[in-house]
Amino acid sequence: MERPLTGIRVLDLSQFLAGPYGSMVLGDLGADVLKIEIPGKGDGSREMPPHFIHGQSGYFLSMNRSKKSMTLNLKSDDGLKIFYDLVRQSDVVYDNFRPGILERLRIDYDTLKAINPRIISASVSGYGQTGPLKDRPAFDLVVQAMGGIMSYTGPLGGEPVRMGAPMGDLAGGIFAAHGVLAALYQRERTGEGRRVDVALLDSQIALLIYRAVYYFLAGEVAVPAGSGHVSAVPIGAFKTQDIHIVIDANGDKFWRALCEAIERPEWAGDPRFADRAGRLQHVDELMALLQEIFVTRPGDEWIERLEAAGVPCGPINTVDRALSDPQVLARNMIVDATSPAYGTVKLTGSPIKFHGTDDAQYHAPPALGEHAEEVLTDWLGLSAERVQALREQGVI
Amino acid sequence: MERPLTGIRVLDLSQFLAGPYGSMVLGDLGADVLKIEIPGKGDGSREMPPHFIHGQSGYFLSMNRSKKSMTLNLKSDDGLKIFYDLVRQSDVVYDNFRPGILERLRIDYDTLKAINPRIISASVSGYGQTGPLKDRPAFDLVVQAMGGIMSYTGPLGGEPVRMGAPMGDLAGGIFAAHGVLAALYQRERTGEGRRVDVALLDSQIALLIYRAVYYFLAGEVAVPAGSGHVSAVPIGAFKTQDIHIVIDANGDKFWRALCEAIERPEWAGDPRFADRAGRLQHVDELMALLQEIFVTRPGDEWIERLEAAGVPCGPINTVDRALSDPQVLARNMIVDATSPAYGTVKLTGSPIKFHGTDDAQYHAPPALGEHAEEVLTDWLGLSAERVQALREQGVI
Repeated sequence: MERPLTGIRVLDLSQFLAGPYGSMVLGDLGADVLKIEIPGKGDGSREMPPHFIHGQSGYFLSMNRSKKSMTLNLKSDDGLKIFYDLVRQSDVVYDNFRPGILERLRIDYDTLKAINPRIISASVSGYGQTGPLKDRPAFDLVVQAMGGIMSYTGPLGGEPVRMGAPMGDLAGGIFAAHGVLAALYQRERTGEGRRVDVALLDSQIALLIYRAVYYFLAGEVAVPAGSGHVSAVPIGAFKTQDIHIVIDANGDKFWRALCEAIERPEWAGDPRFADRAGRLQHVDELMALLQEIFVTRPGDEWIERLEAAGVPCGPINTVDRALSDPQVLARNMIVDATSPAYGTVKLTGSPIKFHGTDDAQYHAPPALGEHAEEVLTDWLGLSAERVQALREQGVI
Repeated sequence: MERPLTGIRVLDLSQFLAGPYGSMVLGDLGADVLKIEIPGKGDGSREMPPHFIHGQSGYFLSMNRSKKSMTLNLKSDDGLKIFYDLVRQSDVVYDNFRPGILERLRIDYDTLKAINPRIISASVSGYGQTGPLKDRPAFDLVVQAMGGIMSYTGPLGGEPVRMGAPMGDLAGGIFAAHGVLAALYQRERTGEGRRVDVALLDSQIALLIYRAVYYFLAGEVAVPAGSGHVSAVPIGAFKTQDIHIVIDANGDKFWRALCEAIERPEWAGDPRFADRAGRLQHVDELMALLQEIFVTRPGDEWIERLEAAGVPCGPINTVDRALSDPQVLARNMIVDATSPAYGTVKLTGSPIKFHGTDDAQYHAPPALGEHAEEVLTDWLGLSAERVQALREQGVI
């Protein structure tokens, strides 16, 4: 079966991370995503050190599969006209500019709607299109800090650290893709596009969930909890004889299984630990007792015993181990993509699986301007001569 | 304008976190999401300590707005028949069961498709519907550990910690919502539903992005980096005279602005620091120099100076500060929801904003079974007597 968004065209003006991650989701789902990049320069992430292959940065490669690229100078009259022509044939214009830039470039939603009433205009910005901070620049670390999640990420009793995954950016791109998908669905019913406005800071707030409600209900302010859980015990990381492992045995069924696996069946009925509330009350005592036991055997032996007993557990995998996990490989989460410009690279795959659709084949991330001729001739019907002239004039 | 998914019905069998977060996204987008819960018991997260209001756990409240609830015993013949009747009138069946449970309950995709070929069946599971680990239980911490992100979340040179936000669960629910939205769009063209299969572990791998590609390209294995960035400098947290702040001044433009703001204009042209590659090479030296400067003034003063110079920066907000930020309030990210069962609660709002649609009003999270009568009479046309009989028989 075809990918769900087959036939949808996305004009992608976004750069670096939040925007491109969201448009990669749309491309993986089958949309024809066209990166529109500044001639001679392109997405700034193409230059991000330290790792490159044939001139392509690993950073860029990691979030630009399933896309095409053309260069276009939107500040030239011819470039703007070409962009409007593309808008007539497209479904979505997607950007991560700061508020006001779309208007300055004359490609804001009201302008585009007059050209194509079905167009969806989606912007991912640091703080959104409205509010007192809307004009401020923002990056992953800043929104992780301002949004609150950093304040409770870190070692127990220690100082805050960022989430290793750049969730400040990624969450914004991901929610923007939701907005685009919902607007595409609605357009099938109404025939009209919409304006989607996603902010990185809003997206962090949306990930606070129970931490926010615990504050609203009880004034509880979260602090770094290491690898434990604020209201569920025992959940955490433990040192074994060799590696670190984690267990998550909060539910009563899992707790009883854990007691068996560690040969302490009497703890299952111990009034201190028998139910969730008790384990939460005696958390320090319980975690210390468990640590004493786990350090006595190697990690793999514990994982085997805990799994046999049905206790959710796992090793803390470094990236190399995670990427060679048999389950990860079986799920096509590591894929090869081959480019005529720079050869074959390994990338992670899409986590959104549809039974009956191939999830192992992706278009390789595009070289800068790789698809300019194809788009201008196939989408817009321009002649080879006209394309050449545009190139000479620096429009593409 | 209406919310995009107005008129869509989702039968939501999911519990706890990954599933309910994804169905909340669908509900926020306008879908009629009906939680189908076990009679007398309900979603296990309704009992999650430690904070409750009128018997509702804060944990449950935080991710079940924009939903209805009815109880239904799927293991009874009458219950199963009612479920099938609901499937005839619905668009999506959404669960986070372990693989095999849908088949055991006789509500797997093949069965439902025979009843309603337009139905979309979406499952979020720990490891997916396929592969050697598919039958294992999984929870947030376990997939954070196995997926690799924990191994590079933590203090510089220290031990790994979990991301404070439960991204192991949240990412799965979020990607599942993408799958449902894409399948709804495709169904408008094909008239047929689809089977969506999202794994929490896959979702972690999908968040590795450049960390994965750096390993593939160069064998680089990520380690905890505190609040810094593996390939972009200066990015990080600094102690001021009082609070912690973060700055993100990697781009050359921002770097020059930072040099002005800290009154070290000569550093902008210093060969050690003048470009990205240089700053990356001299990261330890540069970060130490910056820390010496930042500790000399209060955080608010630095934020004001840095903002005036255009350097992306912010305070590391605790949850209480984040939830009272003027920008967060201006964006309707804190909302009130009122339930007939337990009164008014404060919740976080949706980050997916559509201009022209109210984003401040949400249905309050439902009490257990609150909408059973409404659904059985309005959706299925059952009489009040029949509903009463079902209740007496323990079917609902």
